Amino acid sequence: MLPKEVLERAASEMLDANGAGQSVMEMSHRSADFLPIIEKTERLLREILAIPDNYRVLFLQGGAMLQFAMVPINLAGAAGKLSGGGRKTAAYVDTGVWASKAIDEAKKYVNVRVAASSKDKNYSYIPAAPAPETDDAYYYICYNNTIFGTTWKNIPETGKTPLVSDISSCIASEALDISRFGLLFAGAQKNLGPAGCAVVIIRDDLVGAAPEWTPSMLRYDIYVKEKSLFNTPPCYCIYIMGLVLEWLRDLGGLTVMAERNRSKAALLYDCLDASRLFHSPVEKSCRSLMNVTFVFNEVDGEKRAALEKRFLSEAAAEGLVNLAGHRLVGGLRASIYNAMPREGVEALVSFIERFEKNTLRA
Amino acid sequence: MLPKEVLERAASEMLDANGAGQSVMEMSHRSADFLPIIEKTERLLREILAIPDNYRVLFLQGGAMLQFAMVPINLAGAAGKLSGGGRKTAAYVDTGVWASKAIDEAKKYVNVRVAASSKDKNYSYIPAAPAPETDDAYYYICYNNTIFGTTWKNIPETGKTPLVSDISSCIASEALDISRFGLLFAGAQKNLGPAGCAVVIIRDDLVGAAPEWTPSMLRYDIYVKEKSLFNTPPCYCIYIMGLVLEWLRDLGGLTVMAERNRSKAALLYDCLDASRLFHSPVEKSCRSLMNVTFVFNEVDGEKRAALEKRFLSEAAAEGLVNLAGHRLVGGLRASIYNAMPREGVEALVSFIERFEKNTLRA
Repeated sequence: MLPKEVLERAASEMLDANGAGQSVMEMSHRSADFLPIIEKTERLLREILAIPDNYRVLFLQGGAMLQFAMVPINLAGAAGKLSGGGRKTAAYVDTGVWASKAIDEAKKYVNVRVAASSKDKNYSYIPAAPAPETDDAYYYICYNNTIFGTTWKNIPETGKTPLVSDISSCIASEALDISRFGLLFAGAQKNLGPAGCAVVIIRDDLVGAAPEWTPSMLRYDIYVKEKSLFNTPPCYCIYIMGLVLEWLRDLGGLTVMAERNRSKAALLYDCLDASRLFHSPVEKSCRSLMNVTFVFNEVDGEKRAALEKRFLSEAAAEGLVNLAGHRLVGGLRASIYNAMPREGVEALVSFIERFEKNTLRA
Repeated sequence: MLPKEVLERAASEMLDANGAGQSVMEMSHRSADFLPIIEKTERLLREILAIPDNYRVLFLQGGAMLQFAMVPINLAGAAGKLSGGGRKTAAYVDTGVWASKAIDEAKKYVNVRVAASSKDKNYSYIPAAPAPETDDAYYYICYNNTIFGTTWKNIPETGKTPLVSDISSCIASEALDISRFGLLFAGAQKNLGPAGCAVVIIRDDLVGAAPEWTPSMLRYDIYVKEKSLFNTPPCYCIYIMGLVLEWLRDLGGLTVMAERNRSKAALLYDCLDASRLFHSPVEKSCRSLMNVTFVFNEVDGEKRAALEKRFLSEAAAEGLVNLAGHRLVGGLRASIYNAMPREGVEALVSFIERFEKNTLRA
């Protein structure tokens, strides 16, 4: 979901952006017309997320999935498997599907050590994070787990071991102390803009250790050196991201956005906690502000499936869509990213309450 | 450059595409709203380019640059350097900057054999292509060389050795016999749409030999298996590509487009061949229809630089922009891709003729 104001502005600038007489989609990426756009997007991101000066901001393609490979290759590859090394390990905390995918990808390049996991309780909580070990090249967490609806509330203390985090689904949703991390990355498509661009925030000292066999498009040092213009970047996505960030700045930045997000999420969690029909499967201390998962209390599988089906169909009839849980886990899920207005959550809560009343009466 | 009709339609559908009540930028990539869009884009591409049924069409990120790595990794990586192999070679024809970049990238993964090169005459022609050798895993050419303004006019005969070609800057400009190739790829940003999406056309039997250390996002077999939806694809770029292809189909497909392109290019080459001030540095038999390079006859470097500067500034004053040669080679260059109307080329020819008259008179 994108803010309506952003889409309206994009439509109005489609044939002539910033008086350039052409669409952003037509601009050469090294032109005097496009450079101010990518510079503006970076400047706004730095300002809104309070990114310290000793961090580089990179715009890449390939989404979070490509980062799952780029992180181990760039941060541990030179001492890793394909380089005849194998000395180093990388610590990963397994908090669900996206962390698991990152682990599987990293195993190709480095000895992965699963430092902690919440698999024992179907990823319904965030486990305590043990301290890193000496050989850990980095320490990896997935900050917000979209599928299970959990989020880290405290940044783990990893000392001198660089902390790496996938923040795809919570970037710009509330303040985060960037200086506690070595590297952060996010696919743009949740809170920043359309699919097709990923943002990497990397601390200066971590740039540059990629082994020589690394594909050029997977080397952080090249993106740093070429200011993300080594090849043609996803110009239009970067432009839309700039518009979204302007919208976010103008409404008050992360202080206001975090307050909105907390209040939106509280509406929904309060409704679920008061419900006799549903519950949130997530421990209260780990609940995501972005993805609220919920399940019927009903234990009979067939009855539950029928209830879910009716819930989704009646919700859709009221214009409430995308409420099915992720195809890998089932259940129900409301994604309430930055661009979702409070009215959308209020409408959902009202629907849930009416659905519950009708169901319990029947 | 994109067709005006395409940009107008994109603007009008920005807030509500195909009656979905949302922007394509907001659609989930596995949703019932987006699937018809990617399917339509593939169908139109197959129809317009006459892609045989035994070829898969893939939509990826990372542009041609990422293909420079994906081709050797996927087609020769299992027998290549990082897999402890080194038996296989790959033949490359060096026709300039983009072919050279592909060669440099391939060297990381396979023993590159430069089968032919036109470097001796500053890449002003396409060399004869010698037959492949037994150990060649594939045979690579860059079909249209944007920077030097050359193009292959005949597809080399490579027998059973798969022919691979970068067609980024000539895709959909005229008919090409796909069945002569094993793999074709193109960044979308020249003739198909906005930057941020690449198209790969791969023959079935070439899918699937990637070594186990290949990053998932670099494996053709995964894109084939997941129909380009393994991770979130660049949805909006794929949508715009679909609109461009509709425009191309409606105006008569490649037959009409090729005729337009030949006629546009002839206008410009005829003007240059008749000129006493400029000339085309490219051999007549290898001239690109998409990128027309030209240089001043003046041999004194300083005088030539001054002429070029004046040319570019007077042209810009008439709204004729992007005429500087590529930053790596200098000179002048007119890129006349599919979306450039004949009137644009006529205006340029008129300007060149007036510039010449004024300069020779002075």
